[in-house]
Amino acid sequence: MYATVMHGPGDVRYEQVADPKIERPTDAIIKLSATCICGSDLWPYRGLSPQDGPAHMGHEYCGVVVEVGSAVNTVKPGQFVVGSFCLSDNTCPHCNFGFQSSCMQREFMTGAQAPYARVALADGTLVATEEMPDAGMIPHFLAASDVLGTGWYAADAAQVRKGGTVVVVGDGAVGLMGVLAASQLGAERIIAMSRHAPRQQLARDFGATDIVAERGDAGVARIMELTRGVGAESVLECVGMDASMEQAMGVCRPGGTIGYVGVPHGVSFDGQQLFFKQQRMLGGPAPVRRFLPDLMQRVLKGAIQPGKVFDLVLPIAQVAEGYKAMDERRAIKTMLRVDE
Amino acid sequence: MYATVMHGPGDVRYEQVADPKIERPTDAIIKLSATCICGSDLWPYRGLSPQDGPAHMGHEYCGVVVEVGSAVNTVKPGQFVVGSFCLSDNTCPHCNFGFQSSCMQREFMTGAQAPYARVALADGTLVATEEMPDAGMIPHFLAASDVLGTGWYAADAAQVRKGGTVVVVGDGAVGLMGVLAASQLGAERIIAMSRHAPRQQLARDFGATDIVAERGDAGVARIMELTRGVGAESVLECVGMDASMEQAMGVCRPGGTIGYVGVPHGVSFDGQQLFFKQQRMLGGPAPVRRFLPDLMQRVLKGAIQPGKVFDLVLPIAQVAEGYKAMDERRAIKTMLRVDE
Repeated sequence: MYATVMHGPGDVRYEQVADPKIERPTDAIIKLSATCICGSDLWPYRGLSPQDGPAHMGHEYCGVVVEVGSAVNTVKPGQFVVGSFCLSDNTCPHCNFGFQSSCMQREFMTGAQAPYARVALADGTLVATEEMPDAGMIPHFLAASDVLGTGWYAADAAQVRKGGTVVVVGDGAVGLMGVLAASQLGAERIIAMSRHAPRQQLARDFGATDIVAERGDAGVARIMELTRGVGAESVLECVGMDASMEQAMGVCRPGGTIGYVGVPHGVSFDGQQLFFKQQRMLGGPAPVRRFLPDLMQRVLKGAIQPGKVFDLVLPIAQVAEGYKAMDERRAIKTMLRVDE
Repeated sequence: MYATVMHGPGDVRYEQVADPKIERPTDAIIKLSATCICGSDLWPYRGLSPQDGPAHMGHEYCGVVVEVGSAVNTVKPGQFVVGSFCLSDNTCPHCNFGFQSSCMQREFMTGAQAPYARVALADGTLVATEEMPDAGMIPHFLAASDVLGTGWYAADAAQVRKGGTVVVVGDGAVGLMGVLAASQLGAERIIAMSRHAPRQQLARDFGATDIVAERGDAGVARIMELTRGVGAESVLECVGMDASMEQAMGVCRPGGTIGYVGVPHGVSFDGQQLFFKQQRMLGGPAPVRRFLPDLMQRVLKGAIQPGKVFDLVLPIAQVAEGYKAMDERRAIKTMLRVDE
């Protein structure tokens, strides 16, 4: 088949590769209904994450099971499934504790920017729907696989509460999903930090009550003004840069919580500063599997439309343009059609 | 009066100073029933914290109110009171959120290693008992002012739960109080890291179920063995050094929580490492005032005897020897008698 391979920074190709096949009895092969490009794919694209040789890209997926290994019991060919970008057995102590993204057998999904993909640990990773969903639902299910699940985890990690005040740092796809999650979890005030009009509008659509366009000290000052000098009890850090983390720490109240889901690049913390700020912090790759059944129900019921975050849809053969558009911030998130 | 003044590293004197007096209408003057030396007093004693000129030492206290400012309403002369080392108004948003140690008017107590002391923000800081306690209760009330309250906060910040598994890093007075707190909060397994027999014994008295004498990688390995490779869901870091923080991070399970109460000295965190460890963290000066009424009730009912942590009692005139004994680790914690 043809699939997406990154040969180096800026060099993404849709080219012939070997068909995926069952390698272990716990594997499944799925035919993707759609796939997409993640903000984290831009790190190697921009040369900011080291990479050894060509890489099969893509870790967000939903689709129909076509084959399962002999040890797979919970999904079967013909079922529509969604899975997390973290592959997990969902039975180990860490999974049982709700942190499937730190599963003792954890693997990271790869090769999902393709018409077919192998999913390891299928029983622990995949969640099936009862019926085949309408085509219109596919973007929403696809979003649940990572970007929604990650935004949801940011809100969960930041201990968003009913009636609470939330700040979301970062207006990328994850940040926008964080706004949606905070809204669903009942936050009363959701302040989204964004300088871009289309993203501001999407943030409002997803439930933001306030938009702060300022950054740096001015951004902190504006939020302290909006919160009467107190700060927010929940802050979602959805970028992973030094400046965004500083922003988050600048607006979180003492005893408040920062949930950080942008993989930190060049970020470090001074212990004593962290101590006196007295902010609770939890980060990490999102344990999407914990949230997935609930998120899929919300999608099915029409309570959420996370797929609205895809503002560019391309046939997968044009995946290189999808990366380019996101790199140049012409697109928030690119969905790739694989149905032709 | 005579009081304790630190003139520089290793130079503690009991010498004549001005009597404390009401400086603001929200002040109270108390006659101390007893006072003590804190592990944190050893930082400047050892020359590890910068200090500008002579300092009036002491921030742990209980005693009898002798005078109050015109704006003080909740305590009156003749009452026995305990207060936190953090002075707080207990009415600001941060106090109402349970973080009195980040009170918008926060001050740190000083000058309590003396027969009399001024307590600012008396209404928000002091908690009175209904009756004058017996002399035998004084050490327990005194401990509540900081060392017990700080150990309690470590357990609270580390989200110790009924039935949970807890590791306490540090066998100083705060660590031992952390063991006591974890036990009171219903932890099923409390692993204390300690190499010193008398401290190990005290840890067991306070509720430790396991003692790990190993440190570094061997200590981590031993605890992973004790927890079947999982780690603890709650870790109390009660030292504040790089090695102790590494120990804490080495034994906390993903999704678990580290409560850190040793003021970090020379500790820094790498963002990406912290991210992938997926550990929740909360530190800071303890909001003792939040816990104080409950802790005082537990003392009154005889449910806890935190004063057992004082293994050296000296008349305050010998305060210099008290510092020396703690510096040389001959004493866990020194109580100073002021009643002669």
